[in-house]
Amino acid sequence: MRIRVINPNTTAAVTAVIEQAARAVAAPGTVVEGVTPAMGPASIESHYDEALAVPGLLAEIARGEQVGVDGYVLACFGDPGLDAARESARGPVIGIAEAAMYAASHLGRGFSVVTTLARTGGRAHDLAERYGMQRFCLGVHACEIPVLELENPEARTVIAEACREAVHADGSDAIVLGCAGMADLCEYLTAEVGVPVVDGVSAATLTVQSLVTMGLRKSGRGEFAAPLPKRYAGLLSEFGTDGKEQRP
Amino acid sequence: MRIRVINPNTTAAVTAVIEQAARAVAAPGTVVEGVTPAMGPASIESHYDEALAVPGLLAEIARGEQVGVDGYVLACFGDPGLDAARESARGPVIGIAEAAMYAASHLGRGFSVVTTLARTGGRAHDLAERYGMQRFCLGVHACEIPVLELENPEARTVIAEACREAVHADGSDAIVLGCAGMADLCEYLTAEVGVPVVDGVSAATLTVQSLVTMGLRKSGRGEFAAPLPKRYAGLLSEFGTDGKEQRP
Amino acid sequence: MRIRVINPNTTAAVTAVIEQAARAVAAPGTVVEGVTPAMGPASIESHYDEALAVPGLLAEIARGEQVGVDGYVLACFGDPGLDAARESARGPVIGIAEAAMYAASHLGRGFSVVTTLARTGGRAHDLAERYGMQRFCLGVHACEIPVLELENPEARTVIAEACREAVHADGSDAIVLGCAGMADLCEYLTAEVGVPVVDGVSAATLTVQSLVTMGLRKSGRGEFAAPLPKRYAGLLSEFGTDGKEQRP
Amino acid sequence: MRIRVINPNTTAAVTAVIEQAARAVAAPGTVVEGVTPAMGPASIESHYDEALAVPGLLAEIARGEQVGVDGYVLACFGDPGLDAARESARGPVIGIAEAAMYAASHLGRGFSVVTTLARTGGRAHDLAERYGMQRFCLGVHACEIPVLELENPEARTVIAEACREAVHADGSDAIVLGCAGMADLCEYLTAEVGVPVVDGVSAATLTVQSLVTMGLRKSGRGEFAAPLPKRYAGLLSEFGTDGKEQRP
Amino acid sequence: MRIRVINPNTTAAVTAVIEQAARAVAAPGTVVEGVTPAMGPASIESHYDEALAVPGLLAEIARGEQVGVDGYVLACFGDPGLDAARESARGPVIGIAEAAMYAASHLGRGFSVVTTLARTGGRAHDLAERYGMQRFCLGVHACEIPVLELENPEARTVIAEACREAVHADGSDAIVLGCAGMADLCEYLTAEVGVPVVDGVSAATLTVQSLVTMGLRKSGRGEFAAPLPKRYAGLLSEFGTDGKEQRP
Amino acid sequence: MRIRVINPNTTAAVTAVIEQAARAVAAPGTVVEGVTPAMGPASIESHYDEALAVPGLLAEIARGEQVGVDGYVLACFGDPGLDAARESARGPVIGIAEAAMYAASHLGRGFSVVTTLARTGGRAHDLAERYGMQRFCLGVHACEIPVLELENPEARTVIAEACREAVHADGSDAIVLGCAGMADLCEYLTAEVGVPVVDGVSAATLTVQSLVTMGLRKSGRGEFAAPLPKRYAGLLSEFGTDGKEQRP
Repeated sequence: MRIRVINPNTTAAVTAVIEQAARAVAAPGTVVEGVTPAMGPASIESHYDEALAVPGLLAEIARGEQVGVDGYVLACFGDPGLDAARESARGPVIGIAEAAMYAASHLGRGFSVVTTLARTGGRAHDLAERYGMQRFCLGVHACEIPVLELENPEARTVIAEACREAVHADGSDAIVLGCAGMADLCEYLTAEVGVPVVDGVSAATLTVQSLVTMGLRKSGRGEFAAPLPKRYAGLLSEFGTDGKEQRP
Repeated sequence: MRIRVINPNTTAAVTAVIEQAARAVAAPGTVVEGVTPAMGPASIESHYDEALAVPGLLAEIARGEQVGVDGYVLACFGDPGLDAARESARGPVIGIAEAAMYAASHLGRGFSVVTTLARTGGRAHDLAERYGMQRFCLGVHACEIPVLELENPEARTVIAEACREAVHADGSDAIVLGCAGMADLCEYLTAEVGVPVVDGVSAATLTVQSLVTMGLRKSGRGEFAAPLPKRYAGLLSEFGTDGKEQRP
Repeated sequence: MRIRVINPNTTAAVTAVIEQAARAVAAPGTVVEGVTPAMGPASIESHYDEALAVPGLLAEIARGEQVGVDGYVLACFGDPGLDAARESARGPVIGIAEAAMYAASHLGRGFSVVTTLARTGGRAHDLAERYGMQRFCLGVHACEIPVLELENPEARTVIAEACREAVHADGSDAIVLGCAGMADLCEYLTAEVGVPVVDGVSAATLTVQSLVTMGLRKSGRGEFAAPLPKRYAGLLSEFGTDGKEQRP
Repeated sequence: MRIRVINPNTTAAVTAVIEQAARAVAAPGTVVEGVTPAMGPASIESHYDEALAVPGLLAEIARGEQVGVDGYVLACFGDPGLDAARESARGPVIGIAEAAMYAASHLGRGFSVVTTLARTGGRAHDLAERYGMQRFCLGVHACEIPVLELENPEARTVIAEACREAVHADGSDAIVLGCAGMADLCEYLTAEVGVPVVDGVSAATLTVQSLVTMGLRKSGRGEFAAPLPKRYAGLLSEFGTDGKEQRP
Repeated sequence: MRIRVINPNTTAAVTAVIEQAARAVAAPGTVVEGVTPAMGPASIESHYDEALAVPGLLAEIARGEQVGVDGYVLACFGDPGLDAARESARGPVIGIAEAAMYAASHLGRGFSVVTTLARTGGRAHDLAERYGMQRFCLGVHACEIPVLELENPEARTVIAEACREAVHADGSDAIVLGCAGMADLCEYLTAEVGVPVVDGVSAATLTVQSLVTMGLRKSGRGEFAAPLPKRYAGLLSEFGTDGKEQRP
Repeated sequence: MRIRVINPNTTAAVTAVIEQAARAVAAPGTVVEGVTPAMGPASIESHYDEALAVPGLLAEIARGEQVGVDGYVLACFGDPGLDAARESARGPVIGIAEAAMYAASHLGRGFSVVTTLARTGGRAHDLAERYGMQRFCLGVHACEIPVLELENPEARTVIAEACREAVHADGSDAIVLGCAGMADLCEYLTAEVGVPVVDGVSAATLTVQSLVTMGLRKSGRGEFAAPLPKRYAGLLSEFGTDGKEQRP
């Protein structure tokens, strides 16, 4: 089984963190490949960044389809382009927000999300609603550390404190990490915070692996059928097909 | 007052229909300009098309900001990239789905959406939820005519029939047209169907005009503040800023 | 185009404030007339007051219909008698709460309502639910100033403080003024509070103007068809018809 | 214990039906008095009728308060003026829709409402939402018999058929009668339809009796405190107080 | 009329408190019998306790059916086994949580639940949702007194303080007592707290009495029909039927 | 890793089907053990059966805890006793309904549940709500085959037909099998129905395996902490602890 974990931003150091987290949980027979798109933002911290990360990740899906990848993880907590990616892939595509929230919902009555910048909190609420997880999502909290500064040595203590405050304020039973770049802090934070801490990269990797194991993939018709062939203009012309079989 | 009506697809003929509908309702002092993006799909009929229409329309927002546009209409019923566009613009940005649904909610207990292809119906339901309009949206119905065939002479009778069936099936008090390309059919359909028919292009243009008249625009801080300066890679590098004031 | 802005209470000084706010935003060709009912409470600060304001405003609708008014604004934040008014009028009838909430929903993730007496807050929550605006309405706050004391010089500073506290407590992106009598404070409060402040009188006037411009009115059948002719007894006998064409 | 069952319409024959239904279930020590307002519509079949029934029923509440009535039933399925009545009364005020829906919710997974004219169905849905009964209310069905023709001999068979169709269409476990004027048909319909049939007049009378038995009444402060003294103008001037203790 | 009030725990002293509360409100002709199951936990303070209280209370339902009991109260605030009990009984079965919440919903905009241990609060929220009472349930608060220590002299002052804090924190109009064992404190707490206090044992007893008075019972088919005859194994073999008419 | 798959009914043939389905998807290093409780119903087809299946499965949890089981699957689509089981176990406990619904939610816009007897459909709806899956659960359909007749040769064609009808009626993208006893039909039905078919036993086994792999288990405090020691009476006395460390 071959799973591609797509880092929707273009920073290779983040891809390395993500790939390591995914590999740590995959079963022996599962090949996990982290990929970094060739276009898009260095990090995703706004709706604007997220929207513009989507072409790059869709190009990675197209490349994966050409080589027979079995399933994909979208490793950004905004689950950017999830619907479009599902249309484009034959196998399952799972966002780390949906996987993390589902996993956390099994651990008690509710969880808190701890994310990077406060301005991304609205997106987390939107996703909780979309996935039916509003009833479990008791709060979204920001540590106000930008994505590309998560690896600074002092970041982890700030995040741990944000987690503790979230548990106290929300009465939550678990923490969901609101950024793929926090994946390598999961073990540290679990020890510090005293409630289970869920990393979406691990959760999504295992969800893809489970769906592939069960042979579950979309039916191929209806809303999530492959997009219709179509002419695309300008910079994005390579994303169109004009009748060709494969997009980029 | 200067309003830009952005056609998120790259087909100029559709832009012409949209621009005309917007101009027909704007007040005398309001300048309405229809624009067609330089990149993106010829029409939007999937999540994939919609996601890839966003860079082109964000580029139009950026160009509009440089010349002091007061507000924008996103003239595709999926309201693509609405959150990102709101971050990018100083004045109001309104999608035609939100404007049409709000207008229709004033006309009775509920409305039906009549759209092009059935595969786009899920998006209409998602938007109804996002805007709080689920309680008014009684059904989404497809006429299975592709966007670029809406101008065929026989299309209008098929759409009229779909509208009548929707009113009958849902017991609805109004029809919301589920595609900007149907804007020029609004008068015909109103006469044919016997309930009010709402065109989102007109509704969104008037919503933008009203907000500008009242001097209402986002506060400039928080979730919808301007995106942070950031390096962008590859094809989309022009969308980044690296500290420069303006994006594309 | 002729729009009647109905002040549901019987205090002419409040009507003057309302009429001025409506005229300030109407397009050149739109005639705006403020009217004060001949019966009902001096101000509306309870469910009891609101219920008893309805006969007077319905009489104003009936009088407007006789002279061909195109649309109506109900200028009390409880949107009293909205359903009955919609049955009675041929053109659109818009409450200031619905118009203000819709306008504010375009300005960010959510708004706070700042109203007069705390006892009216429940009604604001009920309306937010009815209009699908619960997801945007982050809180309702009272300044505990009675409606008829809003024009006192010291009132505006108290209200400004209530707005600032609401923004802080709710993390809201906009303020919705919870009383028509606050319409003349909108500019002052916008400057003081630092987020956009929405006056429902302006918003509802522009909503009516937009609907009339688009030619949108109820279909004339079903729930909002004209009420059936009927005998009325006692003080309210003039509201019945006994087969006569027009009610009061 | 003394309970007033208020018929919000002005037709004494309907009051007689209602009073009989209420007396049939009241405990031996409970005095039940049916009252007919002196003003308002002959029957309630629109939002307009309902709004204009409220002054008359509030006058009955005021009269009841003067003679020490312990609680009130509002015997119209629209539960008109319920909030205003609760402000005005010291003891409990219960609408027949809320009581019937609550009773029916104990009888299975869900109920269907069978009402008179289809145009009143929207109000039934609104009330189901207000009372939290949407999850139990599986459908609202009309028999298209006007309120004042319910006593015609052929009406009962039409209503029975509407009940059977509702049970079949909704898979419901009970019928809720959507009009106080149907109270005397409850026994007949139960026998005909094969599922329990709930009459709101009986249910509301017993709910008031139960609340009075438990000594439960509103706390007297906050949203449902007595309305503030206030000047009322015109026809309704008697409803104001200007500092006097009692309203009409 | 004969009503059985089942104490789902096996502590007879609690049954005595419950029986007294139920008798205090029942009508003269209503016979109220408190019963204590022969098996199960001494008190219910976890999901585990609640699940294991169900066989004992179902055995009591079966015994009641054999002697023609008209209706049942489940006197534990978790309403344990309510669906199974409704299948098993011919007459109405009412939980004290549903009855108390419904009663409190008539008293204002919302109520607070005050319960024993915080760990039971989740169940209260679940029930509020199930009964459609989420909109009225403004908060659940614990006094952290175990069920079997409620009769200690100092308990009542702790509970009164928890009630006052709940009213203050939630802005609620009433208190719902979250444990059957608090039934005898209702009068004391009403005097102390200043808002109405609802005891579910009284409320449920009167709800059963009302339903029996109206002749309302489940229809006997569908989801709540009597369970199918079935072989049961082991300790619980007596709960099966193997074709016999009556279960335990 | 050691996972126990508990068949909540007492029929060993069903346990065999379940165990085989679980083993078919488990990773090489995962030991899967199917167990049959010593007490309870032969099959679960009512709320009554479900309630009385819980003591037996809780006894299995207690036995599993004594031997260090890592996680549990509750292999009945009603997810009976899930909360109590989670309190009792140190590792994850997953119901097949929650796991199947979550898996199916990744495959498109929505799924249909196909279950055995129609009377169990209400429980499926309740669970969909509890897990936040209402937005994905488009319908629940019964094939009216009792659990213990699922292995009859003609059953599979009846179920296949029910699946096809469900897909057609609901427009669903996947089928969720509503009974653990259908686990061995999943492959056959997938081929017959043309949309993905989700077996909850497989899905729950993989969910437990994933959670254990990630080291995720409840925090040990709050609502899902181990039940307090307590005296239990009668038949169920062995379920109490009286201070002893382990329950049955």
